Amino acid sequence: MKPLDIEKKSMEIIEQELGERASAWPLKELLVVKRCIHTSADFDYGDNLVFSPGAVDTALDALKRGVTIVTDTSMAAAGINKRSAAALGVEVLCFISDPDVAEEAKRRGVTRSAVCMEKAAALGRPVIAAVGNAPTALIRLKELADEGKFRPELIIGVPVGFVNVVEAKEMILESDIPHIVAKGRKGGSNIAAAIVNALLYQVHREM
Amino acid sequence: MKPLDIEKKSMEIIEQELGERASAWPLKELLVVKRCIHTSADFDYGDNLVFSPGAVDTALDALKRGVTIVTDTSMAAAGINKRSAAALGVEVLCFISDPDVAEEAKRRGVTRSAVCMEKAAALGRPVIAAVGNAPTALIRLKELADEGKFRPELIIGVPVGFVNVVEAKEMILESDIPHIVAKGRKGGSNIAAAIVNALLYQVHREM
Repeated sequence: MKPLDIEKKSMEIIEQELGERASAWPLKELLVVKRCIHTSADFDYGDNLVFSPGAVDTALDALKRGVTIVTDTSMAAAGINKRSAAALGVEVLCFISDPDVAEEAKRRGVTRSAVCMEKAAALGRPVIAAVGNAPTALIRLKELADEGKFRPELIIGVPVGFVNVVEAKEMILESDIPHIVAKGRKGGSNIAAAIVNALLYQVHREM
Repeated sequence: MKPLDIEKKSMEIIEQELGERASAWPLKELLVVKRCIHTSADFDYGDNLVFSPGAVDTALDALKRGVTIVTDTSMAAAGINKRSAAALGVEVLCFISDPDVAEEAKRRGVTRSAVCMEKAAALGRPVIAAVGNAPTALIRLKELADEGKFRPELIIGVPVGFVNVVEAKEMILESDIPHIVAKGRKGGSNIAAAIVNALLYQVHREM
């Protein structure tokens, strides 16, 4: 079986096993849900993903206009399909290993992830923020928005973890910034990348 | 809370929620299990990980001797703690984006992942193969071993998926090559990286 056939077959199995849950999602959101399950084999993503109204359409429009994607981990950046992104003029950036980020974080006693989001804000461009690891990145994004300094086109809020993660996600869920969030503890860099890829592939399918 | 405190607290929560399952694992294996749950918030890893006898000790010895780690995805490579690896003289390699791998795969009608494992074999050095994505990488590793051409110090066999994945893992589970495998569909590049990191941190803890 060729890779594309395997993917098609996998998606069929996922949709079948989702059963009635599959038909509960609008198609555009279902494509995101399925890709999260595809990357984790974890059917909890059939229940825990939350899309703010119109989030997928907002994201697709932003991608078509060549939005910049900023991730909080190099792993999430590595998982994003660079060819699909580049074909739309979409740049994928991650600042977590930048020496100036480490210095600034140390000096101010904040996390490197929080500083990364400030660096995303300083780009002065439309940005999709994809957060798969650090709740502090989400908290900083919310603060920057509240201060009127930065408003991402979309926040993908899927950090994974046991401490501060649920609360940080709730903060984004309650905000009016367009978002796709995995409620609860689950998520990860792989899930952040899967959501971005699901959105990229939808744009390419429409083209 | 500082990152290290958050990690400590997270591991305590994981151990608590694992309950009796935690005490069923030998400590060295439990540290791997817990890090897989830490990276996914998925407690299925409390049940589905299989360690061949002495696999962790074999891995720790290999890491102390500066084994080379070869992954099947750039995402898994990105997730491995490079500072911990470098401190042991451990190199982390991934060949999936190499132009010669793509060419060779196309020419022979095999997957790039399979060719990557051949390239790992051709290094002529001790290797830990960490497979988070491609069942064909596991199948090729088994074939190379059967042909007497290549025997990794350890196979981390945790591809995720719905087609050919379970069967490829069974092939490794039945082999005499030291292995750590996530039985069933689950796994991923994040899990492959988490297992490598759990092993690296154990070496550092012992030092």
